[in-house]
Amino acid sequence: MPRRTRVAIVGGGPAGLLLALLLYRAGIDCVVLERRSRDHVLSRIRAGVLEQGTVDLLRLAGVGARMDREGLVHEGFDIAWRGEMLHVDLRGLAGGKTVTVYGQTEVTRDLYDALDAAGVPIVHGAEDVQPQDLTTETPFVTFRTEDGERRLECDFVAGCDGFHGVCRQAIPADQIRIFERVYPFGWLGLLTRMPPVQDELIYAHHSRGFALCSLRSPLLSRYYVQCPVGDRVEDWSDERFYDELQARLPERAAAQLQRGPSIEKSIAPLRSFVAEPMRHGRLFLAGDAAHIVPPTGAKGLNLAVSDIHFLSQALIAHFKEHEDGLLDAYSATALARVWKAERFSWWFTSMMHRFEDDGGFGQRIQEAEFDYLAGSRAAQTALAENYVGLPHL
Amino acid sequence: MPRRTRVAIVGGGPAGLLLALLLYRAGIDCVVLERRSRDHVLSRIRAGVLEQGTVDLLRLAGVGARMDREGLVHEGFDIAWRGEMLHVDLRGLAGGKTVTVYGQTEVTRDLYDALDAAGVPIVHGAEDVQPQDLTTETPFVTFRTEDGERRLECDFVAGCDGFHGVCRQAIPADQIRIFERVYPFGWLGLLTRMPPVQDELIYAHHSRGFALCSLRSPLLSRYYVQCPVGDRVEDWSDERFYDELQARLPERAAAQLQRGPSIEKSIAPLRSFVAEPMRHGRLFLAGDAAHIVPPTGAKGLNLAVSDIHFLSQALIAHFKEHEDGLLDAYSATALARVWKAERFSWWFTSMMHRFEDDGGFGQRIQEAEFDYLAGSRAAQTALAENYVGLPHL
Repeated sequence: MPRRTRVAIVGGGPAGLLLALLLYRAGIDCVVLERRSRDHVLSRIRAGVLEQGTVDLLRLAGVGARMDREGLVHEGFDIAWRGEMLHVDLRGLAGGKTVTVYGQTEVTRDLYDALDAAGVPIVHGAEDVQPQDLTTETPFVTFRTEDGERRLECDFVAGCDGFHGVCRQAIPADQIRIFERVYPFGWLGLLTRMPPVQDELIYAHHSRGFALCSLRSPLLSRYYVQCPVGDRVEDWSDERFYDELQARLPERAAAQLQRGPSIEKSIAPLRSFVAEPMRHGRLFLAGDAAHIVPPTGAKGLNLAVSDIHFLSQALIAHFKEHEDGLLDAYSATALARVWKAERFSWWFTSMMHRFEDDGGFGQRIQEAEFDYLAGSRAAQTALAENYVGLPHL
Repeated sequence: MPRRTRVAIVGGGPAGLLLALLLYRAGIDCVVLERRSRDHVLSRIRAGVLEQGTVDLLRLAGVGARMDREGLVHEGFDIAWRGEMLHVDLRGLAGGKTVTVYGQTEVTRDLYDALDAAGVPIVHGAEDVQPQDLTTETPFVTFRTEDGERRLECDFVAGCDGFHGVCRQAIPADQIRIFERVYPFGWLGLLTRMPPVQDELIYAHHSRGFALCSLRSPLLSRYYVQCPVGDRVEDWSDERFYDELQARLPERAAAQLQRGPSIEKSIAPLRSFVAEPMRHGRLFLAGDAAHIVPPTGAKGLNLAVSDIHFLSQALIAHFKEHEDGLLDAYSATALARVWKAERFSWWFTSMMHRFEDDGGFGQRIQEAEFDYLAGSRAAQTALAENYVGLPHL
């Protein structure tokens, strides 16, 4: 690892790795610092639905080959609503755009492979990472490895270290504003080596709660059920999970459910969260470090990628054209798209889940939302254009 | 007044009068009972934006002539959002459909004129109206006039007597379900004989609160400002009202504001309310008797008209074709459209008003809603198709 670099990237998830690769392609030095081991990073099960713009950017970065080979292009998905079913024809509604099912783990693996081939330095096991002197012209990052205390000088720090990372924490509290909504339920997810109930995703609203049939590949299914926020994974045997899932699915799908042993099972809370601004001096936040969406609609990874799109262009303009307009605009540019995705994720979450509410008004509004959606091409188009991803601008 | 009629219509507002006229045109006897005097009914200032379907139905009922002469066809409206302005091109977005500005008072007057000409009996000053024996085949309505106690026998009772009317109250509490949301603010409205700030309506979101520039005619302006729910009209001099309005309008509109003395000023609470079902035995509810929307988007009168469309067709099928399918379906048919309008009114209200909220997340969602709307033809189309009115089916 050099003692000095252009951009110190904190966090070796997909956001940090993609930024590193885009900078490398532009001939800009960077170093990636990751607290965990590579095996640990690659063991995390995350989202798996890539927007059209994410796919395009991964191809542009030169990591599209395996995705294009193994990824599943989805031209639509289903919304199940008690007895009814609505097919959302993404391709037809969103001007030919689609989404691609390809796990975040696979994206991360492809990025590691490309960075290894390029020789971009990635430091794993970097403990106690501390971005410092961020509001000076000479910021640096200190951290600790097996070899002892380290110091990396840089021009900029990219905070790609996720919701629990140190970078957002490095911003003084009076210079950052937090916007947050916590939902009164979680998602219990189960991964199993079985064919999915159908090729496309099913988002199911049911009086027992929301359920989602997703997949990672034709032989790897990912299922979710809405669960109380206090539940623990130990409360949910595979059997109980499948019983609950089956009860919430439309008949045709329920009949196709193949119950395999879980190879991963976990509960995630649902949260909307945005930190503003996404810049502090020479620190730029991207991805989960700055914002969280509830998983409904799969915007999390895609937002991280669009942040990196904006940030990489801004850094390239700085280093290659000595032009700081994009850097100065980064926070506002990224946030404009972030908030639209927050709005969509909040809306889709609000529509699809079961809420304990207020005498039933909210449930009737949910039903009206579905009825309206089912009958309106305009409403379906709005859903589809958000689902495949709004433009990166 | 006869002692017996086919349909006893309780309430002489636009819903009851339109039903009476449609039944008369079909050769079905009815009697309208109204507690107030005609002058009182005609003095009430109410909504003034008619959906395309409302306009079509009024024409079909033979009361379109003056509306077509004096009503103002609006092909769009503006949404002002702090500094920004979005023009919603209704005609272009909603397949040629428009709305017509023509006051509810004028609609009511036209209906009275047509009913007078037709000789349909309308009893004003009907006190203590009581629909009775509603679940038998021989319902009747008792009431009191200057001439003493009266009794009107009928086949059906139409409850068109508004939110505070007796008809909904006549349904046993265990056979009706109420869905309700009360908003933490009201609308303070002012009517003045001055030209409006512009030809089309302006819905304005401002950090001080919502404002609406509406009109009844090119010489009669109707303005509104969001106000705290506890405010009294006496707290608001005309001067204070205009100052507040002006502060909330975009510059160009504010510069055009002509302050005339108020000829009416009142505060209305904002409420979403639906009673289900809209039938009890031989009583059928329509309009405000069954549901209330917040005024944002002007759905109240239009929903009453679509209820009457469904109810008149159902009654005509019963009497002319001895076919009760439509009557049996009335509540479900009407409610399906009611809930879509409730959803739209709730959404438009939620987007446009200032809420004291939760650390700002809701405000950011409002801003994202506007930003998304401003950039998405699909979202504008969804707004426009709701604004001009969803199909009557």
